[in-house]
Amino acid sequence: MGAIAVPGVAPGRPVRAPKQDRSRATRQRLLEAAVACLAEYGWAGSTVTVVAERAGVSRGAAQHHFRTREDLFTAAVEYVTEARSRELREVLEREYVPGTCRTRLVVGALVDLHTGQVFRAALHLWVAAASEATLRPRVTALEARIGREVHRMAVELLGVDESRPGVRETVQGLLDMARGLGLANLLTDDRVRRERVVEHWAGVLGEVLGSGG
Amino acid sequence: MGAIAVPGVAPGRPVRAPKQDRSRATRQRLLEAAVACLAEYGWAGSTVTVVAERAGVSRGAAQHHFRTREDLFTAAVEYVTEARSRELREVLEREYVPGTCRTRLVVGALVDLHTGQVFRAALHLWVAAASEATLRPRVTALEARIGREVHRMAVELLGVDESRPGVRETVQGLLDMARGLGLANLLTDDRVRRERVVEHWAGVLGEVLGSGG
Repeated sequence: MGAIAVPGVAPGRPVRAPKQDRSRATRQRLLEAAVACLAEYGWAGSTVTVVAERAGVSRGAAQHHFRTREDLFTAAVEYVTEARSRELREVLEREYVPGTCRTRLVVGALVDLHTGQVFRAALHLWVAAASEATLRPRVTALEARIGREVHRMAVELLGVDESRPGVRETVQGLLDMARGLGLANLLTDDRVRRERVVEHWAGVLGEVLGSGG
Repeated sequence: MGAIAVPGVAPGRPVRAPKQDRSRATRQRLLEAAVACLAEYGWAGSTVTVVAERAGVSRGAAQHHFRTREDLFTAAVEYVTEARSRELREVLEREYVPGTCRTRLVVGALVDLHTGQVFRAALHLWVAAASEATLRPRVTALEARIGREVHRMAVELLGVDESRPGVRETVQGLLDMARGLGLANLLTDDRVRRERVVEHWAGVLGEVLGSGG
């Protein structure tokens, strides 16, 4: 919006789009495309070329941003997980009605994070890393970072105190369950079963967390 | 043991090993080797040739038993899951001390089933099926069969009544958690964290199942 032609700048190009911003936008398009490819085609079918095409970027530009295939896909899963986590927080803040039970909403949001596209992409990357030596150390480190971040976010959103005995294990078990629900959603649409499990377990968690861990 | 040379039979070959028994033994060796390969090398690295070598069987003999790669690996995951489930029941019956809490033992055993070699093999197969059209329908059907069997076994071992409201969802959530713990064990040895989660959640489950769902 508000693109003004100025001397030396091609018509139609916004004034406020210096090289750095365009570069960042290209990078973000590549990262989002990489996650979409990984979720859809798996690791074997996800090459830098396929991602560049999907992002509408030349292969050379893609390689300028990410030197190797491993760089691109690990950066992509990290970036998109962070983006989705931020969105999840925003949705929660918008939808939460003060005075109502927050646990159901938070459990639902955490499970949504683990049953969407970025979890599916991460799953392909984790499993590829299990049998590819070049990928394994980087993905192991990435999994640990994401695991810590998601745990921290879960504790904060649930509003629980981890210094109370059992609270840490309660949250960990909940996140393990969310990962298992994500796995169960890989080959079939597991929504109906999942909603009943989430509804039931949100109740169990509410009681466990409300009664000292 | 007790191999007796009889006319027309090579010395050292047991009398009680007719062709049918040898064929079954070969088949079982192939199935166990297929699961070991899948767990170790992933889907891309697991060919019929690799499995036949590991099993000490000729490629021709392997193909006599399993016409396609898909036949071999889906049969393998199903067979070994059944075998491990049977072993799990036997261990439970042996280790259970009447009058003590059974829930902790059952939860531990179910989590063990999901963090061992056969779960790792299944994980590789599920993820490969997500992006391979030829594999997908068979693996989806296999996942459903195994899911039903493991659920039935969990209900039986926990000794719970699924007609009570919430019991079904409690067991489902527990098995989702077990699958998530299996996934968390893929790239790193997650044993220490897992044992704390299992200990804590076995307690929660004992209370939930003991108090009406």
